[in-house]
Amino acid sequence: MKATGIVVEYNPFHNGHLYHAQQARQKAGADVVIAVMSGQFLQRGEPAFADKWTRTEMALASGIDIVFELPYVYATAQASDFAKGAIELLGAAGCESFCFGSEEGSIEPFLNTWELLDSQRDTYERSIHEAVQTGISYPKALNEAYHSLTGSRSGFADLAKPNNILGFHYIEAAQKSGSTIKPLTIQRIAAGYHDPIQPGSNIASATGIRRAFFEEGSLEGIENYLPAPSLSALKAFHEDYGAFGSWTQFYPLLRYSILKERPHNIKRFSEVAEGIEHLIFESAKKEPTFEGFINRVKSKRYTRTRIQRMLTHIYTGFTWDQLRSFEGPSYLRLLGMSETGRHYLNGQKKNIGLPLISRAADLADPMGEIDIHASSMYFLGLGADNLKREYTTPPIYFG
Amino acid sequence: MKATGIVVEYNPFHNGHLYHAQQARQKAGADVVIAVMSGQFLQRGEPAFADKWTRTEMALASGIDIVFELPYVYATAQASDFAKGAIELLGAAGCESFCFGSEEGSIEPFLNTWELLDSQRDTYERSIHEAVQTGISYPKALNEAYHSLTGSRSGFADLAKPNNILGFHYIEAAQKSGSTIKPLTIQRIAAGYHDPIQPGSNIASATGIRRAFFEEGSLEGIENYLPAPSLSALKAFHEDYGAFGSWTQFYPLLRYSILKERPHNIKRFSEVAEGIEHLIFESAKKEPTFEGFINRVKSKRYTRTRIQRMLTHIYTGFTWDQLRSFEGPSYLRLLGMSETGRHYLNGQKKNIGLPLISRAADLADPMGEIDIHASSMYFLGLGADNLKREYTTPPIYFG
Repeated sequence: MKATGIVVEYNPFHNGHLYHAQQARQKAGADVVIAVMSGQFLQRGEPAFADKWTRTEMALASGIDIVFELPYVYATAQASDFAKGAIELLGAAGCESFCFGSEEGSIEPFLNTWELLDSQRDTYERSIHEAVQTGISYPKALNEAYHSLTGSRSGFADLAKPNNILGFHYIEAAQKSGSTIKPLTIQRIAAGYHDPIQPGSNIASATGIRRAFFEEGSLEGIENYLPAPSLSALKAFHEDYGAFGSWTQFYPLLRYSILKERPHNIKRFSEVAEGIEHLIFESAKKEPTFEGFINRVKSKRYTRTRIQRMLTHIYTGFTWDQLRSFEGPSYLRLLGMSETGRHYLNGQKKNIGLPLISRAADLADPMGEIDIHASSMYFLGLGADNLKREYTTPPIYFG
Repeated sequence: MKATGIVVEYNPFHNGHLYHAQQARQKAGADVVIAVMSGQFLQRGEPAFADKWTRTEMALASGIDIVFELPYVYATAQASDFAKGAIELLGAAGCESFCFGSEEGSIEPFLNTWELLDSQRDTYERSIHEAVQTGISYPKALNEAYHSLTGSRSGFADLAKPNNILGFHYIEAAQKSGSTIKPLTIQRIAAGYHDPIQPGSNIASATGIRRAFFEEGSLEGIENYLPAPSLSALKAFHEDYGAFGSWTQFYPLLRYSILKERPHNIKRFSEVAEGIEHLIFESAKKEPTFEGFINRVKSKRYTRTRIQRMLTHIYTGFTWDQLRSFEGPSYLRLLGMSETGRHYLNGQKKNIGLPLISRAADLADPMGEIDIHASSMYFLGLGADNLKREYTTPPIYFG
C-alpha cells in the first residue's frame, strides 16, 4: 500500500482541510493518507480549540486514514523544528511522499529556493542575523535576507506568504533528514491563513472559523464551513467542557503561573527571550484579560505568535533545558485510524522506523511524558475534572 | 505610654478575641494594645478567610490600637518560628509585656516548663527525635517526650492543649530573644480552639465560625459570635470578592500549580518533607476537590496542618532556600492604628527597633517582597482582578 503524509493541526477540521486531504491522496496516487497532527497545544502557541481526540475524530470521519500525534516538543516549536519533527515522523511511518498546501501551488519554486539557500547558507544566515539586530521580527528579517539573495530573479517561492514559509521548512526538513520522501504541494484555495470567513464561500481559514465562534458565541454561524462530522464533534466537545480552548479561557491559570514564577523563573522557560520576562510579569500584574495582556507584550520585535509560544511553555512548565535535550522524535503515537489505516499499519509493522505507541502507559520516555503532561495542563485550563483521559483513551478506530 | 502586645490571626475577629484584647489591656495595665497579625496566609497553612486589611479594620473597630503584619516567612512557619517572629516584632515595637490566651490561665506553669526543658534540652530533643522515628506526628512526639520529662510531677503547663503549646513557644521565643518583654496569660473562655459553635453562647472559635459559614453559605448563623463591625466588614469583603478565602476556593489554582510543578519541583518548596512530593502530585491528579485531595495526603505522620503549610508554600512558590535565608524580622509593617496607636507611635519613633513601614513601596527587602507577592497570590485565588491593592492601600486609620 502506498502512503502519503500531511502535516496538520485541524483547529478545527474544516472544508479546506477536506479538500487538501482529497487532493493529496489524488496527487500522490496514495492508498493511505497519514496525518501528523499537533496535540493539545499548537504551533501558534495556543491551546487547541478542541482536544486532540476530538480533532482526530473529525479527521477520520472526513477520510484521513491514520492520525499520529506530533509531540509537544515539536508542535509548539518554531517553524523549522516543527517541520523537522513532522517530516521525520512521516518518514518513519513509511510515507513515500508528503503533500502540503501552499500559496505557490507547484513544487519547483520550493526546490529552487532550497538549492539557493543551501548553497549560500552562510551569507543568508549572516544577513538574517544583521536584520534582526535592527529590531525587526524574525519572519521579517528572514524575508529581507531572502530578497537580497534572489534579487529580481523569478522561479523562487514567495516566502512572504505564510503557507509557503511552512512549505519551505518541510522541504528543508526532508532534505536534511536524508530520507527519500518526496515533496508535493497543492494550491491552497479560497481562504488565506488568517482570513475571516467570507459569506458565499464554504471554505474559510481555521483562524476565521474560531474567531467567528468567539465573536458570536455559537457554532451556528460557522456550520457552512465544516463537514457535518466536524460540527457534531465540536458540539459534543462543547457539551462536555462548556468551552473551547483559548488563551482567554486559560488566562486565569496562565496569569497565576506568571505571577507565581516571577521574572527570575520565567526566563527558564523555553523560547523566553532575554529580558522579556519583566515585561511579561508586569503586564500580567496589570491586565485582568488576555487581550489586554498580549497587547502590552507583543511588539515589532516579538510577534504575537512568538510571544504565545513563550506563554505556552510558561503555562506548561517546559524549559530551555528540556528543549535542548531532544534530538528528534522517538516514537509514533497513534491517535486514530480507519479500517484502511489499520490494514496499512498491520502490513508495515516491520518497516516502521520508530516504536508505535497506542497507549499512554507505554510512553515512558521523557518526550512522551511531556505530551501526557501537556494534556493534563490542557484539560485543567478547560476546568475539566478528569485528568486520567490521556491514560483511558485508546486510539480511535473509525471502521 | 505603656504598651502590651498580642499575637493574632483574627480569622475572623470574634467575641472571644474582643474579650482577650480587653483582658490583656487590663492585666498589663496598658494604655496601648498592639497586635502582630498574620497576613494573607495563616499558621494552619490556609489562605485567610478575609484579607489582612479587612481583618485589620475589624480589630481597630473593636479596640486594638495598632496592627502590624507578621511577615509571611513567620506567619506560615511551624509554631516555634511563628512565635519567634511575632515576639521579636512586639519587642521591637516597644511592648513591655505580651499576653496570650491559654487553657492553663496562669503564667507560672509555663515558666516552670521552660526552665525544665531548657535545662534538659538535649534529653528532650533526643526523645522527640526518637518518637518521630516511630512514625507519629511531630506534635504527638513532642508531647510524649515532654511527659517522660515531667513524669507525675505537677506545676507544669499541659502541652497537650493547642493554646498552651503556642503559649510555650512565645515564652521560649521571649527567653531566647534576650529581651525584657514580660509574658502574661489569660484563661481562654468558653470555646476550645477547634470547637464548633454552641447555641446559647456568644463565644465561638474562629474555626467553628468559618465552618458554620461554609456549611450554611451565609453569615446569618454566625452573627451572634461577632462584634457588629466584624460582621459588616465581612459582608463588605464578600460583596467585593463574592467569596471568602479557603482552600476549596483556591484549589483550582493550587491543583494546577502542583500538576505543573511535578514531583521534582514540588520538593523545592518550603516544608515539603522528603518523599511526600509524589503523594501530593498523584493525589492532585486524582482529586477534583480539595477535601478529596487533603484526605489522601494527610496521615498519622503528617497532620492536615503540616500538609497545608506545604501547600501554602507550593501555592505561593516559597522555597526551602528562601526560608533558610532569613534570621529574623527586618521591618514593622503597619497595617492600621487608632488615634491612641498614632500617639504611641509618634512618641516611640526613636525607640522602635526596626524600620517602620507604612507603604508597600518602601518594602524593598527580600522578606517584604515575599509579603507583597503572597498578597497577589491571595487575591488571584479569590479571582480578583486588581492586584495593585498592596500598593494602593495605606495603613487604616481608625479615629
